[in-house]
Amino acid sequence: MASIDEQSLRAIEFLLYEWARTIDEGRLESLAELLIERGEYKVVSRFNVDRGLPVALIHTKSRAQLRDRITSMRVANVYEPHNYRHAVSGVQVIGASNGVYEVRANYTVIRIMDHDGSMALFACGQYQDKVVFEGGTALFQQHQVTYDSRAIDTLLVLPL
Amino acid sequence: MASIDEQSLRAIEFLLYEWARTIDEGRLESLAELLIERGEYKVVSRFNVDRGLPVALIHTKSRAQLRDRITSMRVANVYEPHNYRHAVSGVQVIGASNGVYEVRANYTVIRIMDHDGSMALFACGQYQDKVVFEGGTALFQQHQVTYDSRAIDTLLVLPL
Amino acid sequence: MASIDEQSLRAIEFLLYEWARTIDEGRLESLAELLIERGEYKVVSRFNVDRGLPVALIHTKSRAQLRDRITSMRVANVYEPHNYRHAVSGVQVIGASNGVYEVRANYTVIRIMDHDGSMALFACGQYQDKVVFEGGTALFQQHQVTYDSRAIDTLLVLPL
Repeated sequence: MASIDEQSLRAIEFLLYEWARTIDEGRLESLAELLIERGEYKVVSRFNVDRGLPVALIHTKSRAQLRDRITSMRVANVYEPHNYRHAVSGVQVIGASNGVYEVRANYTVIRIMDHDGSMALFACGQYQDKVVFEGGTALFQQHQVTYDSRAIDTLLVLPL
Repeated sequence: MASIDEQSLRAIEFLLYEWARTIDEGRLESLAELLIERGEYKVVSRFNVDRGLPVALIHTKSRAQLRDRITSMRVANVYEPHNYRHAVSGVQVIGASNGVYEVRANYTVIRIMDHDGSMALFACGQYQDKVVFEGGTALFQQHQVTYDSRAIDTLLVLPL
Repeated sequence: MASIDEQSLRAIEFLLYEWARTIDEGRLESLAELLIERGEYKVVSRFNVDRGLPVALIHTKSRAQLRDRITSMRVANVYEPHNYRHAVSGVQVIGASNGVYEVRANYTVIRIMDHDGSMALFACGQYQDKVVFEGGTALFQQHQVTYDSRAIDTLLVLPL
């Protein structure tokens, strides 16, 4: 359990929950604001992480790149409309050095299809994050979403 | 992130978790105590919330009405015995004014049938709550359970 | 809501999350360190708990016994490789006396098979724990994992 004051811990929890809620409420254009300007966002399989393999399903290296990806999704992708519902649990700050907090949490995502309201377990895994404070606000320096499954059902449209 | 002291935040989290545990442990007669006397409890679909449609699956406007509904369930309903298991996650206080705290959280509910112990994902969605303090105790002024799915499998017997 | 200072509450949450993460990351040899020397670890069905029946799926009464069981699993069991992903939610300290904290939380476990990455809801239930502090560290005096289902799919290999 890393040494951290309660207020910072609350801000870090809020940041992780805000990421999930922003997606679940469909406000994808706001996601980039949760990263620092040069923040990284990665969606990568546990299989690859465990073996040090570099390939990721999504890998953006700045706010601008993430915004670009969201725009392309809104404009170019053709997909069956759906929503996600996250459960983010077990938030732990496991390290801190030079103002960078190393954070772990588990997530599960249920996908709900618009046309019939059917629910299915879509993804689960671990957040492996680095969080910093800019002007008193907690932001992701890196938000790495590791997923346990080998594959993602159909195509990943909405970010995880 | 609304300005709120740690003790109040803890009391709000406890209230949400207590609601879920009260249902999961089958102590439904105690649910009404978690609302203020004129507290509202609503179970409503995201579809209806998004369109401003008023129809709700459950809508009680006082402790007495909720108690009434629980009694009717105990006495009149015939159903296959089952339990729920909640996961309430991502509790966020997103606003506060005049002593009313606006709270969001995600929930998922697994239903477990008594006769064979089979588990199934039954519901998921968001809590959209208003919490107040009466005599130092956090209580729901409004506990709105929005569910993501269009329909509820068979009939909703136990409250969500 | 039992009277407890924020720092102790955080330590208790961390302990529960650490248990889950230790399993999910496959570091089973570290589990025993989360118990006191004579700490009990039980996996038992809600059916049996509700009826006061003593039979448990796992019941170890010391760190040494738990270590023994993990070793036997590593050495003797033949099973299809898989991982778990926990969601531990709704942590509540519901009582405290003589330095022993009574803790409740819900958990769900998703099982992910190595060979094809398929995910399935594997177990859910409640933690019914007693936590004490030794040298400032929160440890389980008793970690009781009650599961809602009647049966466990195939054999329980990894601890819950």
